[in-house]
Amino acid sequence: MYIILTYDVEIKRVNKVRKHLKKYLTWTQNSVFEGEITEGRLHKCLNEIEKIVNKDEDSVYIYRVNTQKFIKKEVIGKTKSFDDMFL
Amino acid sequence: MYIILTYDVEIKRVNKVRKHLKKYLTWTQNSVFEGEITEGRLHKCLNEIEKIVNKDEDSVYIYRVNTQKFIKKEVIGKTKSFDDMFL
Repeated sequence: MYIILTYDVEIKRVNKVRKHLKKYLTWTQNSVFEGEITEGRLHKCLNEIEKIVNKDEDSVYIYRVNTQKFIKKEVIGKTKSFDDMFL
Repeated sequence: MYIILTYDVEIKRVNKVRKHLKKYLTWTQNSVFEGEITEGRLHKCLNEIEKIVNKDEDSVYIYRVNTQKFIKKEVIGKTKSFDDMFL
């Protein structure tokens, strides 16, 4: 299964959310992670995230497709690396 | 064709980018738009966006799937409306 996960989380919780997502998915952009993941690991990942976020203030969207080949990805501009973002 | 579009654009260009995306897609979250769109309209949309963004600083990711039924969407937390965001 392939996942695109986008989040809009209060600044004080962002680092914690990112730290957990990094264990399971690949960072793509400011507030986007993506990657191939099993159902079991996704469940674990989302359980962790649910414990961190405030459901009245934050939002996390998970888009699942069965296989990455259903998705075509295109980029305009810079392909940022994780290091650009966090160093 | 169904599109998920995520952007990471310098603050001074964000409003302009959003204004154009709103014409073609539905706002989902802070830096995410999505929606059903034809190839022709997507081409027009991306042409407009390319003129606004600085390709050395900004990035826009476009994930395409042939049909929305290939994507399953799940939300944790708040489903924000466009009004929450811009009013």
